[in-house]
Amino acid sequence: MTNSEKSNQMANAIRFLSADAVEKANSGHPGLPMGAADIATVLYTRFLKHDPKAPHWPDRDRFVLSAGHGSMLLYSVLYLSGYEDITIDQIKNFRQLGSRTAGHPEYGHAAGIETTTGPLGQGLANSVGMALSERILNAHFGDDLVNHHTYVIAGDGCLMEGISQEAIALAGHLKLNKLIVFWDHNNISIDGPVSLADNTDQCARFEASGWNSINVDGHDQDAIAAAIEKAHKSDKPTLIACKTTIGFGAPTKAGTNKVHGSPLGAEELAGARKALGWTSEPFVVPADILDTWRASGLRSAKEHAAWEQRLAATNAETRAEFDRRMRGDLPANFDATIVAYKKKLSQDKPKVATRKASEMALEVINAVVPETIGGSADLTGSNNTKTSQTQNITPDDYGQRYVHYGIREHGMAAAMNGIALHGGLIPYSGTFLTFSDYARGAMRLSSLMGIRVIYVMTHDSIGLGEDGPTHQPVEHLAALRAIPNNYVFRPADVVETAECWQLALESRKTPSTLALTRQNLPTVRTDHSDENKCAYGAYELAPASGKAEVTIFATGSEVEIALAARAQLEKDGHPARVVSVPCFELFEQQSEDYKRALIGEAPVKVAVEAAIRLGWDRFIGLDGIFVGMTGFGASGPIEELYKHFGITAEAIVAAAEGKLK
Amino acid sequence: MTNSEKSNQMANAIRFLSADAVEKANSGHPGLPMGAADIATVLYTRFLKHDPKAPHWPDRDRFVLSAGHGSMLLYSVLYLSGYEDITIDQIKNFRQLGSRTAGHPEYGHAAGIETTTGPLGQGLANSVGMALSERILNAHFGDDLVNHHTYVIAGDGCLMEGISQEAIALAGHLKLNKLIVFWDHNNISIDGPVSLADNTDQCARFEASGWNSINVDGHDQDAIAAAIEKAHKSDKPTLIACKTTIGFGAPTKAGTNKVHGSPLGAEELAGARKALGWTSEPFVVPADILDTWRASGLRSAKEHAAWEQRLAATNAETRAEFDRRMRGDLPANFDATIVAYKKKLSQDKPKVATRKASEMALEVINAVVPETIGGSADLTGSNNTKTSQTQNITPDDYGQRYVHYGIREHGMAAAMNGIALHGGLIPYSGTFLTFSDYARGAMRLSSLMGIRVIYVMTHDSIGLGEDGPTHQPVEHLAALRAIPNNYVFRPADVVETAECWQLALESRKTPSTLALTRQNLPTVRTDHSDENKCAYGAYELAPASGKAEVTIFATGSEVEIALAARAQLEKDGHPARVVSVPCFELFEQQSEDYKRALIGEAPVKVAVEAAIRLGWDRFIGLDGIFVGMTGFGASGPIEELYKHFGITAEAIVAAAEGKLK
Repeated sequence: MTNSEKSNQMANAIRFLSADAVEKANSGHPGLPMGAADIATVLYTRFLKHDPKAPHWPDRDRFVLSAGHGSMLLYSVLYLSGYEDITIDQIKNFRQLGSRTAGHPEYGHAAGIETTTGPLGQGLANSVGMALSERILNAHFGDDLVNHHTYVIAGDGCLMEGISQEAIALAGHLKLNKLIVFWDHNNISIDGPVSLADNTDQCARFEASGWNSINVDGHDQDAIAAAIEKAHKSDKPTLIACKTTIGFGAPTKAGTNKVHGSPLGAEELAGARKALGWTSEPFVVPADILDTWRASGLRSAKEHAAWEQRLAATNAETRAEFDRRMRGDLPANFDATIVAYKKKLSQDKPKVATRKASEMALEVINAVVPETIGGSADLTGSNNTKTSQTQNITPDDYGQRYVHYGIREHGMAAAMNGIALHGGLIPYSGTFLTFSDYARGAMRLSSLMGIRVIYVMTHDSIGLGEDGPTHQPVEHLAALRAIPNNYVFRPADVVETAECWQLALESRKTPSTLALTRQNLPTVRTDHSDENKCAYGAYELAPASGKAEVTIFATGSEVEIALAARAQLEKDGHPARVVSVPCFELFEQQSEDYKRALIGEAPVKVAVEAAIRLGWDRFIGLDGIFVGMTGFGASGPIEELYKHFGITAEAIVAAAEGKLK
Repeated sequence: MTNSEKSNQMANAIRFLSADAVEKANSGHPGLPMGAADIATVLYTRFLKHDPKAPHWPDRDRFVLSAGHGSMLLYSVLYLSGYEDITIDQIKNFRQLGSRTAGHPEYGHAAGIETTTGPLGQGLANSVGMALSERILNAHFGDDLVNHHTYVIAGDGCLMEGISQEAIALAGHLKLNKLIVFWDHNNISIDGPVSLADNTDQCARFEASGWNSINVDGHDQDAIAAAIEKAHKSDKPTLIACKTTIGFGAPTKAGTNKVHGSPLGAEELAGARKALGWTSEPFVVPADILDTWRASGLRSAKEHAAWEQRLAATNAETRAEFDRRMRGDLPANFDATIVAYKKKLSQDKPKVATRKASEMALEVINAVVPETIGGSADLTGSNNTKTSQTQNITPDDYGQRYVHYGIREHGMAAAMNGIALHGGLIPYSGTFLTFSDYARGAMRLSSLMGIRVIYVMTHDSIGLGEDGPTHQPVEHLAALRAIPNNYVFRPADVVETAECWQLALESRKTPSTLALTRQNLPTVRTDHSDENKCAYGAYELAPASGKAEVTIFATGSEVEIALAARAQLEKDGHPARVVSVPCFELFEQQSEDYKRALIGEAPVKVAVEAAIRLGWDRFIGLDGIFVGMTGFGASGPIEELYKHFGITAEAIVAAAEGKLK
């Protein structure tokens, strides 16, 4: 190790801010910040292109702390670098209710936190989306405006999670050479030495997926710097395996799992101060060290100014487009385009699957919204996510708009999070609804972060037929509706599909899931309205001929069945209305009056959805009739399945009339 | 390629049974069965130790078709080998409602289907659990009784899924050298060539995780056989990379994605017949070919008979124990042990977290149930899953009972499925409840297959405190309750925890999830009862002093709060009762009378759970009061969080009394 005294103290500032904050909170993870302090010091003081005074500068380098439990590392470097959101008081309030310095880094709590991490592997997979966004936008806007790196610190846990394989294989395939991952290779996980559960040669593994790998002493700052410089020259993404000591400096606990997730304790902390020559009180950084840190935070100011000049010098149209994208605004003609498209649909009345309807809507959307980036987890033809505007993004051509994510639902979802977080692009991508289970770890983070990610989930019920129960979602609508801040759309026809897409794109702080059919559905919205009716979440699609005796609530493919049941009920002398419910969450956002009136007073309330009942009591009450699934599906042709499981107009009519008697 | 004409025709029997069945069903996947037919022929006719006349023989080799979409490959070899469950009529009824030959292999539909596959990567991860079980049971019972291989056919999709990395890293770490994976390396996925999304050197990747790898021509049967023989001698698990042509024999579609997931079509199928010299009508296998297949099905009969002799010669106690474990029966003294333990708890009244209560229960259980295999995804000390009886399973000592699964929730869950499927062992293992999201793909399959897998999910609410919203489950109870055939237990104290463990172990066809607290809880079940009250799913824990004005339903850590609210309400002159609801699913299985009476007629119904409302309307109706979460949690100390989110006895009392006015 060849660090100078000054370099050591720069890193020690991170170590003691972190350990002292954990000590004060009496909870948290000192091990990683102490172990990875040298890495962070080199990165932030010598390489990272960022401007703490303008932390949202679009062309900044992105830094992701994938090992999110080490949050104090991030808070420390943000404070030391001069980010205004992270004051010393925030650091003193680590892990306290209402502070910006939550237990794990929370996106939106403070500038400089580029993503929410903690669930392991997510940050690494986000970074693939960020690095890809950089390449895409670079291809669109050129080196002058977009030219930056993405850096990650990942731990052993990140690399054990399966999502890491999906991420590194995708990054290697796409040759994202501006992605640089520091592996905090400390050989320790919570249970003890990593060797309790793993013997993987990580460098060999990354190389097998097209990465460059470099081994360094993670406490030798010059070696780390040399590795970064080497990585900058690589034509592949780079893993820098940094051999570190977890809890570096702690006299008896360093290098063990005892320092991972608990405060050091007063004695051990005093011992670390002694061992590392850190004489300051808790939360005090010696002036010369803080000054040097703060000076390093100004390092990129000139580069930022030059960038602003280049942006100002760009032709007005390009500049306006760049700014619009970075703000996340949709093009001005977006709404009008959707309205015109809906008008045409109401006239044409196509009978298509909603997955096809989604493709048709995307064909219109992608023509006017150039920032959409489509994709699929190897189900392109099934998810109907590719349109004429979206050609494959490849290492030779990043200027396109379609990602073959591979059979990697979790990595795909997390990469989409990264794309949305980077800014300038709107990611959407598909898989089968049942495989939302695979992606759920990342989907939850879309919701928690409140970002615009659009999941296109086709084959949304037993209606997919012969593939059988492994592929037939029955609980997934309920399970996704359970996630806070998640719009789950299940449109009933081409028009609703267009409206749901419009809402998904306009929802800047809420991710959306579109649940779409494999099977064809008739157009039920044959009367055009400029208004987006799906925005109400639920609305009356077909009124009763008189005072309603029956209200039938339905979504997606079951709206057609509800309408057929209504027709029969009306024929039988029972006025009946049909309410389409494309989005539970938007319905809940309506006024109490609207909700009460829509649910109405009909003596018989029926809900029909080819899924489980959970959540439907909200509409039909405990006495209501639910026509749907009670367990897993089965393999067979669709018509037989709907009959077998009793999801038919006849069943609705019989149940409703039985109750009316 | 050096196959003889006979060998080719043996494989062609698989090819045409498969392609003809897909053609008749007008749906399905001919590409894999045609491509992997040579592999399956070699394996089933020359190596696989199995007895189609006694398909449940415990010491049989296990075969897992991880690429489950190629189900016709499995059905074909089962039919050809002479498994009675799979007749030619079943093959003709491929993908029809009620047939054993579902679109994807469904465990329980027919002997010889060792696991349900289709969601990619799951079978590969199951196989790790199976191969580990073999080693564990071998250590317990010796070579005479347990000594078999586990074989897998995995596709490119299986290897792209992240779960595959978790599986192979764990298998490599554990040196499961009797696990042999054939990679059907056909370079094609649904969207087209694999190179659209992946360039991983799979052999290098497996080797990085401690595997042996062998490359062969997947259409050269002797080369495949030689590779298997070599694998049998390896001290590591082996990947046999078999270069194949998807849809082998199809004249224009072979080697393309067109043959992956659709019928060949009459013309292409006729062309394949011509190309491969297959002159039989659909569903007819020439007598000499079928005879040879059937004879190969008898190959292990002698070995099976010798095994039965060895079992008969084993000492009576060991034999009885082996048989008991294989039947899946619990030891005779199990129930009495739990009752005695509960009695002691009611006296001792410990105040411990339910995660600790779970450890205490396990300490008792593991002493009398030697077949439990514990573990954790690197949260052993947090999940409290390790007891004095469970020491680490290592490559040097498989005779132990604890698996450090690593930070691999998904692979862990799938491996547990494999352990349960293998038979003879009962797997339980832990992670944080929020990370059930990572494991959900495999957890769903536990439920769909109906197998005894026990998930120990601790840190089950905002009660975990400072780690914040990424780690605080709010929607997970609802999302897990949504899965059919899944017991979600949330016990309120030590006694309920013991009862829930008893139920989990006794539920042979339903997996269980125990949601457990980080924080301490008082014993609320201070009156001992031999009866398992949690078996009702919900029961009256504290009656009202008079005619109930308020019923409070609660689970887990909120039962304590409900009891405090009840005390205040009673003090205020409002008779109130508390119903503990440890398991929604078991409650639904009770009689209508029981359910009606338990929910009762109190004018005010309150539910309290530190999670979202979804599902609670079942108990409290739409007018009920729900005290819980409406969105994500926050980072902070537990006491502050409960106050911040209004989950307090005071809030319950205020709301209830507000309604009573």
